[in-house]
Amino acid sequence: MTESPLPIAVLVSGAGTNLQALLDTVHGHEAEVVAVASGAPGALALERAAAGGVQTRVFERSDHADREARDEAMADWLVERGARLLVLAGYMELLSAAFLERFPDAVINVHPSLLPAFPGLHAIEQALAYGVKVFGVTVHFVDEGCDSGPVILQRSLELPDARDPGEVLQALRPIEHSLLPEAVRLFARGAVSADPRNPRRIVIAPQVGESS
Amino acid sequence: MTESPLPIAVLVSGAGTNLQALLDTVHGHEAEVVAVASGAPGALALERAAAGGVQTRVFERSDHADREARDEAMADWLVERGARLLVLAGYMELLSAAFLERFPDAVINVHPSLLPAFPGLHAIEQALAYGVKVFGVTVHFVDEGCDSGPVILQRSLELPDARDPGEVLQALRPIEHSLLPEAVRLFARGAVSADPRNPRRIVIAPQVGESS
Repeated sequence: MTESPLPIAVLVSGAGTNLQALLDTVHGHEAEVVAVASGAPGALALERAAAGGVQTRVFERSDHADREARDEAMADWLVERGARLLVLAGYMELLSAAFLERFPDAVINVHPSLLPAFPGLHAIEQALAYGVKVFGVTVHFVDEGCDSGPVILQRSLELPDARDPGEVLQALRPIEHSLLPEAVRLFARGAVSADPRNPRRIVIAPQVGESS
Repeated sequence: MTESPLPIAVLVSGAGTNLQALLDTVHGHEAEVVAVASGAPGALALERAAAGGVQTRVFERSDHADREARDEAMADWLVERGARLLVLAGYMELLSAAFLERFPDAVINVHPSLLPAFPGLHAIEQALAYGVKVFGVTVHFVDEGCDSGPVILQRSLELPDARDPGEVLQALRPIEHSLLPEAVRLFARGAVSADPRNPRRIVIAPQVGESS
């Protein structure tokens, strides 16, 4: 079990509150955020990263021949920065298979629903339209599908009277901001593995002393 | 607001533990179970009903020309018994549109997942195969689809280490046995309605004195 922080990179698109949560919690402790990449310039998340002294780079699709070429350039930079775990924090684009193969079992995402319910965009609006009484947050491994990879952590919140997406988002945000750092911590101490009998089932090793 | 118990009927297929929960809680109080119907003979649920002094009848498909004819005979009997709410408690068959039209907005079901995740048979096994960390129970209105009607009540249970369906079932059963009677109580006091702006969103009126 290593004592040095795990080098992680964060992929962002928007306001970057989940990036901020990582900078405020695990950064400099269990993990070190060594790179922040964005698919678009101007994301507030990039300012947060710069303010935290983290190197940033923008990979716009229009600067590359196609999505694959863009993803390849981004992967090259992230490898060069030494990232061993990639965290999608509001990153709104699918990643190509070739990109994911560069970081096997080392790309995670946070999503504002109890997957497999309500994958994709506007998860909270989808849930409200369906009329659910229980909402939640999922941290999961990223595969080529849309929010379809194995679940690492989930937390639920009963909001039986919810009707406003903003209100639900406000209620789920603190859960995201605790669940994502928790997943990074678990990953950093090597506590996250797949059940050999069902690789979709992620096993979290209990924290027991320094032995084994 | 009526003081007399709401006449309800329960449709069963199996062991009938949810029927037993209704007999032990709301029966003789907010509701009166006036009929128990089964699609198959020999269900333990029928014995529970008889032991509770409730009239029972079996509607086997083989005794009727087709499913529609069977459903019609069952609906006739349930109307005759005066049932104003039908509760599916482990009833394993889809109900025809014609049947449901006889009891508009008055057929409810309990399902061992947080719908819309894992509808249909073997919900717990489906959830374990997916690898979820949060399980739950849904009480919902029944429509022609499979577990697709509007949600009335939901309750979640975090079981991050679950691997055995029997263990999950044991954990969810007490939730079913509290959620289903709770839904019947709410229905009996007229507290369950659809949001006119989104009929999929079921509104539960708060219990406030006798006014309005």
